[in-house]
Amino acid sequence: MKRSFLFTKTSKTAPADEASDSVKYLIRGGYVNKEMAGVYDFLPLGLRTLKNIEQIVREEMNAIGGQEFEFTTLQRPEPWQKTDRWDDDKMDIWFRTELNAGGQLGLAPTHEEPITDMMVQHIKSYKDLPVYVYQFQTKFRNELRAKSGIMRTREFLMKDLYSFSKSEEELNEFYELTKKAYMNVYNRLGIGEDTYETFASGGAFSKYSHEFQTVMPLGEDTIYLKKDKSLALNEEVFNDEVLKDMGEKKEDFEPVRAAEVGNIFKLMLKYSKPLGLFYTDKDGKQKDVYMGSYGIGVSRVMGVIAEKFSDEKGLYWPENIAPYKVYLIGIDEKGAKEAEKLHDKYPEQILLDDRKDASAGEKFADADLLGMPYRVVISDKTLAEKKVELTDRKTGERKLLTLKELSSILK
Amino acid sequence: MKRSFLFTKTSKTAPADEASDSVKYLIRGGYVNKEMAGVYDFLPLGLRTLKNIEQIVREEMNAIGGQEFEFTTLQRPEPWQKTDRWDDDKMDIWFRTELNAGGQLGLAPTHEEPITDMMVQHIKSYKDLPVYVYQFQTKFRNELRAKSGIMRTREFLMKDLYSFSKSEEELNEFYELTKKAYMNVYNRLGIGEDTYETFASGGAFSKYSHEFQTVMPLGEDTIYLKKDKSLALNEEVFNDEVLKDMGEKKEDFEPVRAAEVGNIFKLMLKYSKPLGLFYTDKDGKQKDVYMGSYGIGVSRVMGVIAEKFSDEKGLYWPENIAPYKVYLIGIDEKGAKEAEKLHDKYPEQILLDDRKDASAGEKFADADLLGMPYRVVISDKTLAEKKVELTDRKTGERKLLTLKELSSILK
Repeated sequence: MKRSFLFTKTSKTAPADEASDSVKYLIRGGYVNKEMAGVYDFLPLGLRTLKNIEQIVREEMNAIGGQEFEFTTLQRPEPWQKTDRWDDDKMDIWFRTELNAGGQLGLAPTHEEPITDMMVQHIKSYKDLPVYVYQFQTKFRNELRAKSGIMRTREFLMKDLYSFSKSEEELNEFYELTKKAYMNVYNRLGIGEDTYETFASGGAFSKYSHEFQTVMPLGEDTIYLKKDKSLALNEEVFNDEVLKDMGEKKEDFEPVRAAEVGNIFKLMLKYSKPLGLFYTDKDGKQKDVYMGSYGIGVSRVMGVIAEKFSDEKGLYWPENIAPYKVYLIGIDEKGAKEAEKLHDKYPEQILLDDRKDASAGEKFADADLLGMPYRVVISDKTLAEKKVELTDRKTGERKLLTLKELSSILK
Repeated sequence: MKRSFLFTKTSKTAPADEASDSVKYLIRGGYVNKEMAGVYDFLPLGLRTLKNIEQIVREEMNAIGGQEFEFTTLQRPEPWQKTDRWDDDKMDIWFRTELNAGGQLGLAPTHEEPITDMMVQHIKSYKDLPVYVYQFQTKFRNELRAKSGIMRTREFLMKDLYSFSKSEEELNEFYELTKKAYMNVYNRLGIGEDTYETFASGGAFSKYSHEFQTVMPLGEDTIYLKKDKSLALNEEVFNDEVLKDMGEKKEDFEPVRAAEVGNIFKLMLKYSKPLGLFYTDKDGKQKDVYMGSYGIGVSRVMGVIAEKFSDEKGLYWPENIAPYKVYLIGIDEKGAKEAEKLHDKYPEQILLDDRKDASAGEKFADADLLGMPYRVVISDKTLAEKKVELTDRKTGERKLLTLKELSSILK
């Protein structure tokens, strides 16, 4: 992609009400556009990044037997009334709307009810189980305050997977499987090392749920991490009772700030029973369906990654999710010509800064702000040595490569 | 994909309030799930079909210089107040919602206002123009009645492209270019032969707009098609004044039923001016930005295609958009084994009916209902001749192929 083609401009300013530098970089870099507090558009560079994250999540969900579909935003009350959640006191983040034809609807905050309701048509027998379904779908939550950039928004892209199992044992097996799939996701996203499976409160139907928490100073949560990093507990379950239950000692843990990047719940029969989802077993008897739900806020994760991989100059994206691998700058006439040739060969890997009205200094500043993993400069000087100069955005490490060596990075 | 893995079941019944057979097939086949009138979930087979259509549209939009992004569903009033459209009398299909933090929001029925508003940050100079941006985004329209299956819904996936040009001439050039891109889309979707660029009313700012109308008996519109098929007019502009203007004679036209599959508008300065979008020309003077908008209802088009390509037994998808190319049935033990081997080689091309509790007759009926372009049967009988039996779902034409010949179709 050429900068001269890309319509977004980088900017020196960002909204004053944004709390973190990384969100300011996302806005200044033209990754996102702020409509209002908690509502952000994804501009071309941002959408590419988001889709890269989405694709990694999709591959890992397919690998554990997930089937992708897409449910709607508009939700009718009936399934929610059956589980007694169509109620602002029970779920205070509803957005509501009215049909011109009459009747109130909700905007999807989550999808347990409609999906369970639909499954009644498709799950009849033990032969139909287990089933794992997921979607990438926009969720709406009417947050009173929305001040964490794209990490906590009123409208966001979520991967939500729902599992339907024949027994608690089968649910437990899949639950453990998703833990591994989730860690695969975080490893591929580049945040695996700092992301911990964390015990959190389980609600009425199971003792604990699990969150995945990425350690970082601007995280919204406090988790207690065991000093050897073998165990993490959300502050909400860090108490004497739980510690005793687990055979752990308080003094072995340290509090750290972290951002939640996923959560998984054993729902057990909470939704299946009131919505009338049962199956007939081999022996002809009606049995309960055991459910779980498994979320990853895709746009939220993008915010966490931006926060984690930014410095005083801007962003530095992990290679797997960067919108382009290389930010390419051609200096002098010959350098610009070579740069254009290289771009035309790898247009999906290179963001070429071919702007005629920008100085080299402005281009270097944008390379730092936008944060492609590598900055490559081609100039008369490097060409004299038949080389290009490659700088690692994260480490600042610089080296001269032949065009052939660079090509092997771009492939 | 194996039927034994796919969670959706086919059904013999469909909601009684659906008007057309094709929607009933989509529901019975598990392509979509009806949440309520005008609101449909896309289940795995339906989502695959929808994504295939989306990808064809995306490629054609990229080919004319479109840049993809994604705007939000939640819209604040301000930009709409500037163009005087934040008004149920002016746009009667608004869905509204309320922020817990206070204030009314709208659910995106379209995006001219927020996108134009955002562009003020990015379009300053003649060097920044022209710009073409598009998205695949869910739109919400509070239709009083919703009775046309997925062809006219309250929530639907739309491709909307917006053009920003330096002059009326530059707008006109791009407008003509999109006409070609749109016809490329319809040709690739398999409806090109029956789809006509059709003059429609232009509103206050241009004489005509253009629709793309696909001729079919259940279409919602009447268009007047010239007998030599060189010209089509929507009934709303089929009058003496327009005919005189075009130098045409009434008797040369015939009325036909058609469904709209796209529309394009010259918006001129309707949105740019009130939202303060201008540019500075070479001579330093402030100039107007000329806009156009170009829509394709992606889920709607899927409904039109389903309607157009269905018969008394079910659907028959065009090859480019079918969720799978082949519906594969293995009969007898050896046939089933060979079928499984073939499936495992081409899991993305084949839907294998490996259900153990379904009869051959039920499998043939599902093959007809679900409408993959080819049904392939492998049995002891065909294997004795080292062949498989391929049936064209649309024409019913049957032939025996070697596995090698079949592989060349699957590649």
